[in-house]
Amino acid sequence: MIVITSNKIGQERIAEIVAYIERHEVKAHVSRGEDRTVIGIIGKADPVLAEHLRQMSGVEQVIKISKSYKLASRDFHPSDTVIKIKDVEIGGDQLVIMGGPCAVESPGQIDEIARLVKMSGGQVLRGGAFKPRTGPYSFQGVGVEGLEMMAEAGRKHGLLTITEVMTPEYVDICAEHADILQVGTRNMQNFDLLRKLGTIQTPVLLKRGFSSTYDEFLNAAEYILAGGNPNVMLCERGIRTFESYTRNTLDLAAIPALQQLSHLPVISDPSHGTGRRELVEPMCKASVAAGANGLIVEMHTDPDNSMTGDGVQSLFPDQFARLLQDLEKLAPLCGKRFETPKEPVPAGSWRI
Amino acid sequence: MIVITSNKIGQERIAEIVAYIERHEVKAHVSRGEDRTVIGIIGKADPVLAEHLRQMSGVEQVIKISKSYKLASRDFHPSDTVIKIKDVEIGGDQLVIMGGPCAVESPGQIDEIARLVKMSGGQVLRGGAFKPRTGPYSFQGVGVEGLEMMAEAGRKHGLLTITEVMTPEYVDICAEHADILQVGTRNMQNFDLLRKLGTIQTPVLLKRGFSSTYDEFLNAAEYILAGGNPNVMLCERGIRTFESYTRNTLDLAAIPALQQLSHLPVISDPSHGTGRRELVEPMCKASVAAGANGLIVEMHTDPDNSMTGDGVQSLFPDQFARLLQDLEKLAPLCGKRFETPKEPVPAGSWRI
Amino acid sequence: MIVITSNKIGQERIAEIVAYIERHEVKAHVSRGEDRTVIGIIGKADPVLAEHLRQMSGVEQVIKISKSYKLASRDFHPSDTVIKIKDVEIGGDQLVIMGGPCAVESPGQIDEIARLVKMSGGQVLRGGAFKPRTGPYSFQGVGVEGLEMMAEAGRKHGLLTITEVMTPEYVDICAEHADILQVGTRNMQNFDLLRKLGTIQTPVLLKRGFSSTYDEFLNAAEYILAGGNPNVMLCERGIRTFESYTRNTLDLAAIPALQQLSHLPVISDPSHGTGRRELVEPMCKASVAAGANGLIVEMHTDPDNSMTGDGVQSLFPDQFARLLQDLEKLAPLCGKRFETPKEPVPAGSWRI
Amino acid sequence: MIVITSNKIGQERIAEIVAYIERHEVKAHVSRGEDRTVIGIIGKADPVLAEHLRQMSGVEQVIKISKSYKLASRDFHPSDTVIKIKDVEIGGDQLVIMGGPCAVESPGQIDEIARLVKMSGGQVLRGGAFKPRTGPYSFQGVGVEGLEMMAEAGRKHGLLTITEVMTPEYVDICAEHADILQVGTRNMQNFDLLRKLGTIQTPVLLKRGFSSTYDEFLNAAEYILAGGNPNVMLCERGIRTFESYTRNTLDLAAIPALQQLSHLPVISDPSHGTGRRELVEPMCKASVAAGANGLIVEMHTDPDNSMTGDGVQSLFPDQFARLLQDLEKLAPLCGKRFETPKEPVPAGSWRI
Repeated sequence: MIVITSNKIGQERIAEIVAYIERHEVKAHVSRGEDRTVIGIIGKADPVLAEHLRQMSGVEQVIKISKSYKLASRDFHPSDTVIKIKDVEIGGDQLVIMGGPCAVESPGQIDEIARLVKMSGGQVLRGGAFKPRTGPYSFQGVGVEGLEMMAEAGRKHGLLTITEVMTPEYVDICAEHADILQVGTRNMQNFDLLRKLGTIQTPVLLKRGFSSTYDEFLNAAEYILAGGNPNVMLCERGIRTFESYTRNTLDLAAIPALQQLSHLPVISDPSHGTGRRELVEPMCKASVAAGANGLIVEMHTDPDNSMTGDGVQSLFPDQFARLLQDLEKLAPLCGKRFETPKEPVPAGSWRI
Repeated sequence: MIVITSNKIGQERIAEIVAYIERHEVKAHVSRGEDRTVIGIIGKADPVLAEHLRQMSGVEQVIKISKSYKLASRDFHPSDTVIKIKDVEIGGDQLVIMGGPCAVESPGQIDEIARLVKMSGGQVLRGGAFKPRTGPYSFQGVGVEGLEMMAEAGRKHGLLTITEVMTPEYVDICAEHADILQVGTRNMQNFDLLRKLGTIQTPVLLKRGFSSTYDEFLNAAEYILAGGNPNVMLCERGIRTFESYTRNTLDLAAIPALQQLSHLPVISDPSHGTGRRELVEPMCKASVAAGANGLIVEMHTDPDNSMTGDGVQSLFPDQFARLLQDLEKLAPLCGKRFETPKEPVPAGSWRI
Repeated sequence: MIVITSNKIGQERIAEIVAYIERHEVKAHVSRGEDRTVIGIIGKADPVLAEHLRQMSGVEQVIKISKSYKLASRDFHPSDTVIKIKDVEIGGDQLVIMGGPCAVESPGQIDEIARLVKMSGGQVLRGGAFKPRTGPYSFQGVGVEGLEMMAEAGRKHGLLTITEVMTPEYVDICAEHADILQVGTRNMQNFDLLRKLGTIQTPVLLKRGFSSTYDEFLNAAEYILAGGNPNVMLCERGIRTFESYTRNTLDLAAIPALQQLSHLPVISDPSHGTGRRELVEPMCKASVAAGANGLIVEMHTDPDNSMTGDGVQSLFPDQFARLLQDLEKLAPLCGKRFETPKEPVPAGSWRI
Repeated sequence: MIVITSNKIGQERIAEIVAYIERHEVKAHVSRGEDRTVIGIIGKADPVLAEHLRQMSGVEQVIKISKSYKLASRDFHPSDTVIKIKDVEIGGDQLVIMGGPCAVESPGQIDEIARLVKMSGGQVLRGGAFKPRTGPYSFQGVGVEGLEMMAEAGRKHGLLTITEVMTPEYVDICAEHADILQVGTRNMQNFDLLRKLGTIQTPVLLKRGFSSTYDEFLNAAEYILAGGNPNVMLCERGIRTFESYTRNTLDLAAIPALQQLSHLPVISDPSHGTGRRELVEPMCKASVAAGANGLIVEMHTDPDNSMTGDGVQSLFPDQFARLLQDLEKLAPLCGKRFETPKEPVPAGSWRI
């Protein structure tokens, strides 16, 4: 940690700041410059010390050199975290594809989509039972029944399942039905939810807040890790910028950047990241080329009538199948392995 | 609602879209243009219809003309909402000042600050018992005891109190102790929390999400209003932009804009909005000049040692007192009334 | 300047970096921390040194403590710059109001608007002869003739004039006709234009780039100052954010922040800053309360038919006159003086 | 074009608006809704009409359905533009790699780098002779001599050359020496520069403004095309967001989006797009997977000592060579062809 003083303070105030620092079991190194004095702090400083120093009069800037998160950092855990769920390994050399509708709508809908995800080569079925919606009058999900429909579809077709959990009180019931719990972008800093997820062992896919920095993202992961749950995967899903042609701006540089800063797996979500069906396929390929450990992709058999209105970013089943065939060729060039089944997917009867 | 079709679709698809629309108890008006066809929808359309249309093939754009929120809209409620709590009226011609520390730290601290807020002319004591923090290792607030300390200080000095609630399960206990509940910026779209707040009558100060649009902000308010709690005030607290000199960019145009779009009172938070003590006072004045119904301002007797590290944006007590004296002169020019007590505040013994 | 090394480099590389630094006539102070080594640089370092260090292997971060601009900085010039043009002083205790149309359209139009600006109490006539437009097919301004029309209107009504210059080759002719030259937001980093403006003495109003930081803004001013023209005023005109209800987000905290960082006058432009007529008046007042040295405001006698399409953010003449009367009362509370003429402005025959 | 009226205006005002519209040789279609009236405009409307309507009282919103750019639009030019320069085709199925230093520094430096670009398989040599710099005291480029050095190096090694032009008066001399002229991000809306580039036939690489939308970007291209120069390529180079870990946020979805909206070739610049050497290689691959027609990549033999301080984002020559070998494998999966020479590049003697 480095403290930079204001340019007009006297020796006496500097001595007070140094004395203050040294009361915290660290050492202070003073370098007097032309304009300002710089105080280096040596030793393991309590993170709160930085906060206190920052607000002292006479202090212009406090620069943390060590990161504020530890368990999420590659410095403290150099090898990749690999999360093994049944026969799927997330974070290793396997490319993991999670596909499915925005929302679970009916047993028939989710069963049919699960069948198509499996046939296309996907390993995980996605689907929301509880939906976070901007306005109170929009469809809010089918609730607990949806969890059951999805669990059944996953079992039947041999897929893992992932679903979103929005509030601490639903964590247990969601964890009973799904293999992976998703924290949505609006809840990345719902700290009570993160703390609750730290008390279980179910893997968590943590979506980046749509205006959160990498540092805040890794600190949110730290809440879960610090609670005792090591099974966290990060998900880049686009950030909010001035550009409105796309729903969000998918920040693909986050993939290698997070992999360098952290040991946790990184998944990409081009569906929410772009919000436009015609951009999903190129952004899926780009995500894999950037090194993503997996993709989460919306696919629907009848996007025109999806209940959440996210159909516009959902692939049709035949697009999804063709995409996975392309990824099968791309994966090995990116150090990943991925295979699709050999029987062909029936051509796009779903396509309008 | 207006539907704009893609520029190459045929008559047949247009007819299908029209038929689809008319199954929803509204009428469709078709205007054929040179390139594209425009379909106007007449009648009260279900908001979900827009979502469905947006994802139909052949549809390029769907433009909502009516707003997605109703109870929060001035169209539906033309006169200003005035929230009366004891002898304070928020949303009318009174300027309301909420002052206090970022976090409640001890009975002595909050009592002394309450005394100073009251002496300076403030009407509401702010203070956090539960603190949302970016990282898990930072000070998280003193919890329920803090609620009690603050309630006691408010009672003793004749101030209303406001405190943050972070999770649905704490709403009841917070409402027992505080006069106003605050929803923090990271929780603006914590929909379960909003729903729970809709079930009580305690006034809620809803902070704008740091990357939320006015429309999303008013939709979040709509959740609380739709639940049955009409006592909502909006708080502009700065948005996240590329500029990092200030902690956030305080969007003062939001004050008149929200007052035009909605009937709810609008409060400004220049402390979080700038994150720098030296900018708080000019931004408080600017907020009042822009028409704010009130201010929420951090003040601390010992900012160097505040436990959250937010001291750098806290005013010293004598700055706070002088600011309120200035606001007393400014308020009448802005159509507001505000008075400070006539006995002088003791000069800055707290100032370093 | 402080250099923070990566956490795994050895002593040898540190010695090389120190040797590199000391070849530049400054001294290096080494503090070894637990993880990283910090090197403080003492003495007046060439700004290019920071750039070189930043890219050396083994260097993680380089922090500049001194600012990269000098002539624009209050550290080097503690007293306020006051720009005196005829009987108007910009940057002192006078509040300066610049009013007029987006574009000069005809001699009659600019003459009538000048008359109204003067009658209302404004001191400067604004109007564009050359207009920067997003697309090539929009109205691009009337050109050199517009300069003449505006100069004539200014002379006749006793107003200073300000007009935009877009390219180095037009600087001289614009300076011949106008009292103040404006650099538009898109040209804030048109360095050849800035350099040319440094070679003359005509005052320059430099608009902040719509996505530029304070630091970049002051560096752009530095180009003009370093060229030899000390007469620069800064103009906050709104920045681009995710919010699209307003045309830009007017960053009013920039006013006190720039005044603290720099000695140059700061003008606010609520017309472009909001893009909505109904928000201009509250934002004008808020700007003055925040400490602005002046305002630049669009006003038009026939906004419905303005040639640039900026009419939607132009005040009607009677709104402009009433605003200035309000500012007359507000100014003294903000340490400024401003007076409007005593004869009444004819009531809004221009208002629809 | 669609006009949406305010919700309280009367029949009379609507009739006036309709009459106004019909004076412009288009037809108006009126649909009365519950709250508001919608007026559809049929026929080829002058773009200025939208601007005028937008500012009329009684008009709430004007929505353009046709795009404001024409020559840049794929609607008007369905097939891809392929720019042929000597034996290189940009915009077709060839992947084009432009490599070289940020700035030309000396004949020896540019010659050696040109040799390495050629050996690695690149087709174009990049290098700046005129450098746009944030502050006036930074290195501003070697000027006209640099143009000569680069032209000589290009000729000798059989590479095309690209260099930045910053001001209209230097367009001719730059065009004399370089095969492609680059417009930098800060000059994307330097309209006089764009107009001048429209008068020549030299291909132009237009960089996206760091806060410009796709629509503004294509309108900037339209300036050059409308002037008569059809040889424009677009370059995504990252946008400014709240994230500061990377220098910019590389918006890779812009690649397929721009290719859908326009027929012009799209080049990606991961060096400026990330500002960090360790992210350049994954982002180059991701760009190709997203469909880029080419890449522009900084490479330097001695990044520690590059004169602009951009060394931190420059690849070392051996990294550059390996990257191009990887792209050779990736290109065919993305519908592109690209070949590297068969003789090996000497291993990284440049690497520290």
